Amino acid sequence: MLLPAINNIVEVCAKQQLEDVILSPGSRCAPLTIAFNRHEHFNPLSIPDERAAAFTALGMSLKSQKASILVCTSGSAALNYAPAVAEGYFQQIPMIVMTADRPPEWIDQLDGQTIRQTNVFGNHVKKSYDLPVDYTHPDAQWQINRIINDAINLAHQAPAGPVHLNIPFREPFYPTVSETVTFDENSRTIKQWAVKKDLAQDQWQLVKEQFESFDRPLIVVGQAPLNDSLIRIIDEFSKKYHIPVVADGISNFQSLENAIGLIDNILMGANNKANLQPDLLITFGKSVISKPLKIFLRQHKAQKHWHIQEEGIPADTFQQLTDTFNISPTTFFSNMNSGIGTTADINWFEAWATHEQHQRNILSQHFAKETAFHELAIVHQILQALPAGSDLHLANSMTVRNANFVGIPTDSDLEVFCNRGTSGIDGSNSTAIGSAIKSGNITTLITGDLAFFYDRNGFWNNYLPKNLRVIVINNHCGGIFGVIQGPSQLPELEDYFETHQPLDAQKLASDHQMEYACAQDATTLKNSLEDFYQAGNGPKILEINVDKALNKAAFSAFKTLIKTSPCN
Amino acid sequence: MLLPAINNIVEVCAKQQLEDVILSPGSRCAPLTIAFNRHEHFNPLSIPDERAAAFTALGMSLKSQKASILVCTSGSAALNYAPAVAEGYFQQIPMIVMTADRPPEWIDQLDGQTIRQTNVFGNHVKKSYDLPVDYTHPDAQWQINRIINDAINLAHQAPAGPVHLNIPFREPFYPTVSETVTFDENSRTIKQWAVKKDLAQDQWQLVKEQFESFDRPLIVVGQAPLNDSLIRIIDEFSKKYHIPVVADGISNFQSLENAIGLIDNILMGANNKANLQPDLLITFGKSVISKPLKIFLRQHKAQKHWHIQEEGIPADTFQQLTDTFNISPTTFFSNMNSGIGTTADINWFEAWATHEQHQRNILSQHFAKETAFHELAIVHQILQALPAGSDLHLANSMTVRNANFVGIPTDSDLEVFCNRGTSGIDGSNSTAIGSAIKSGNITTLITGDLAFFYDRNGFWNNYLPKNLRVIVINNHCGGIFGVIQGPSQLPELEDYFETHQPLDAQKLASDHQMEYACAQDATTLKNSLEDFYQAGNGPKILEINVDKALNKAAFSAFKTLIKTSPCN
Repeated sequence: MLLPAINNIVEVCAKQQLEDVILSPGSRCAPLTIAFNRHEHFNPLSIPDERAAAFTALGMSLKSQKASILVCTSGSAALNYAPAVAEGYFQQIPMIVMTADRPPEWIDQLDGQTIRQTNVFGNHVKKSYDLPVDYTHPDAQWQINRIINDAINLAHQAPAGPVHLNIPFREPFYPTVSETVTFDENSRTIKQWAVKKDLAQDQWQLVKEQFESFDRPLIVVGQAPLNDSLIRIIDEFSKKYHIPVVADGISNFQSLENAIGLIDNILMGANNKANLQPDLLITFGKSVISKPLKIFLRQHKAQKHWHIQEEGIPADTFQQLTDTFNISPTTFFSNMNSGIGTTADINWFEAWATHEQHQRNILSQHFAKETAFHELAIVHQILQALPAGSDLHLANSMTVRNANFVGIPTDSDLEVFCNRGTSGIDGSNSTAIGSAIKSGNITTLITGDLAFFYDRNGFWNNYLPKNLRVIVINNHCGGIFGVIQGPSQLPELEDYFETHQPLDAQKLASDHQMEYACAQDATTLKNSLEDFYQAGNGPKILEINVDKALNKAAFSAFKTLIKTSPCN
Repeated sequence: MLLPAINNIVEVCAKQQLEDVILSPGSRCAPLTIAFNRHEHFNPLSIPDERAAAFTALGMSLKSQKASILVCTSGSAALNYAPAVAEGYFQQIPMIVMTADRPPEWIDQLDGQTIRQTNVFGNHVKKSYDLPVDYTHPDAQWQINRIINDAINLAHQAPAGPVHLNIPFREPFYPTVSETVTFDENSRTIKQWAVKKDLAQDQWQLVKEQFESFDRPLIVVGQAPLNDSLIRIIDEFSKKYHIPVVADGISNFQSLENAIGLIDNILMGANNKANLQPDLLITFGKSVISKPLKIFLRQHKAQKHWHIQEEGIPADTFQQLTDTFNISPTTFFSNMNSGIGTTADINWFEAWATHEQHQRNILSQHFAKETAFHELAIVHQILQALPAGSDLHLANSMTVRNANFVGIPTDSDLEVFCNRGTSGIDGSNSTAIGSAIKSGNITTLITGDLAFFYDRNGFWNNYLPKNLRVIVINNHCGGIFGVIQGPSQLPELEDYFETHQPLDAQKLASDHQMEYACAQDATTLKNSLEDFYQAGNGPKILEINVDKALNKAAFSAFKTLIKTSPCN
């Protein structure tokens, strides 16, 4: 007979309103597999490659902002979760990671699929729980119920993140055919109420007084989920006090009116960078893509750097942090929208706006007449063609950089995703697939060939959603090494950095019954994109073949163009 | 300028006579990449998917019994090594795992490809070293030289295993084009001399006296590399004292004359298992495949269980361990081959031999007339067709079990490999590929479709060797769940345990320029195998399509046949 305490783990997950479960096949985890399948609240997916399963779960949580649940068997299965768990940890995405385990007495006894699973995710989970192995004592049942509630609540507390439950099972793993799996509807849940943190009134007064003393405040937004109400609040703030807002490519702030989106280009093109030096830097969100921005701010420090995040010790990304505010950006800027008597220098605001407009002009003129078919032009063309209100996943590492160079469209109501927690190439396909499964929107992944084939098992499941659109820009190598300084002139470039790979995506598309199209130039790409975004019977792949030498030359020419078209 | 201390890591690896290096592309690890490439002793491979890279390195070390070196960049790259590192740890295979890292001051500062790499492999490496970040002080140079020597020596000490070197790098990562990379030939090495451990004379005398008091000793050999000289020593021991030797399918003891190879079948068919109960159990090697053997020995305990392993706390696999000998099996049995005055009961020895012969007769008669094309018959047919002196890799989990049921050929001079450290399906292809690269022999991998496609990126590199032969038995699901008790009757079977997958191997073969053939019945399989083992221009894949329902019926019929043909 299966154990009621295990069934009630599933009951608590249901009552806590978790929605999404990804199982990977195994015997040791069978009690969980069966309980999740037989609970009316859940409709689990089954994905065999645990690395892909975990990134798919990450993608679901990214879109839902709610913990998805992973379940795998004992042994190396758990280790294959690790890349996605680390990505979730640094991207602060809630996840519940359940690994079935041998009971403790069988560890290191040479039985199959047995490793040392306690704390197996090390410092990349918020907490790792070992469940008791014997469920008969009432105290053990209390402990199990408490742990599953604690884990769910902890995963969702700011900063959100993965929590690990290691669950030992003794045999039997399977119910008899006639056995009914029952759930105790009275299983206790511990509800975690939403809290709002605020500064004390005297603190607000001090903050506002200090703010009034600056002439050149600059807001920089790092990676964050799309938050329309926060955009409206900051729109008011920005306009009221003349504060420029740098919206990095993964900030989801591109739709803010007057957002500074082309920060890479502005900093490459600025004749006198000191004119752009803030006296007060205000930041929120996680990492930024723009390396020129990081370098610029580290070299041109503000007098004060205020960082806003609800919990935890912040990163000192720009090496100048002076003040932290452990409240939400919404609370911060809502409050700052009143009670301040001065504004920043309007010239300061307009200098930034002029730079942004200058770079937008260069871009549009350049790509209007550009005939070469290279990655920057391709990414520009794709971004312009994205359907309004769709979701966009950008793979590491060249794709997201290219998108930042050409700018996320400001008027398309996009939500942008990228695995910048660890910046790995290991799970882009799976993450986009998980996100697409949870989204009603067309979901486009733009990726290079290395990231695409690295995670080709992302497609190896029976749940690819119709709204998925994958665009592979294939230069048959890790092209980033050809364009960054350092490796591009070395004899090791081709064999050890770019690492030529011969695959194209057509056979993969056929293997997984995805519609496939291929583009070789701007005209075929334009036509392909029109077809690509028509509704279809299933997910689609569009492969774009590019020449790495052409890319490199075009990338270099574009940089030169910016540098020789300065904005003062 | 690149740092001499880093170049000298490579020099020490060369002087310590390590041979094999697998690099994965990245910037942070560029100083190591360049140094390994430019050192005349090394000819590194470059493999983009770190999970596959690490299993390939494992395969190389498996074959060479010498540490191969892995080098990856910072971030989640390192986490993708974890499944192979754990497999190497539990299979006791020496490996040197180098992970480039950000310097410590940049951890948790939201820079790209930055995770918490210290001790990232947890309890699945013998030791994890953090190298210093500043190499200028002579003490730091001394420390680096010492650590790399210690790591190599530790990896090779019994029990061998992976050692982790986490190596932080500050920029620059790349030399200038004109820079010459030099190595200090005087870099110190610390040579670890081979030791031989032995018992004291009075201890030997006690052991031999005790041994003489038993009538029914039984040797059970677990997983071990092929060791012909040990086989000869034990052949003498077995014959001299009438000691049956159970050679599990992964013991590489199948060529021992009188080895008991069909242990699964014997224990299923034995009318009176008590007749096979030993009074002294002697074991060496790592895990055994046979679940019936484990259950039998746990239920029919010997008076004493002697286990021989050079180092460490042994597993109590059979729940009866009473004596441990921290010496090599070679030392143990060489010494026991003289000075013992009695023998075991000859009837005891012959009872086991009769059982083995009985099961061999059943097998040969059964498969001689078997017309159904199912997995047991297929594995039997393949094993008979293996070229003499070749290497055999068996994937988890059904393949290795099937091979144990039908028996490893005794006269083919095979070496058998299987990832039974963690018993995962995650790296079988890569492991076989790495092993084949290091072997002059034809190297056959027999695998199921789940394991094959899970690790399909094993083929995604530019080094597939000509001697590689991959046989995929494709039932389009995890067929083991249909044949084991428990899940086979449950409604979850197809969706959540077997997990149907639609792929066949032809497109994969074409993607990687491998010769491909397909067999559907015994006759086409026979013909295919003849072609398959002809020399070719490259590696080959043979796919065998089987019906899971037929498998299940045939597996069940074969068990019934054994149970209804008892040997008394």
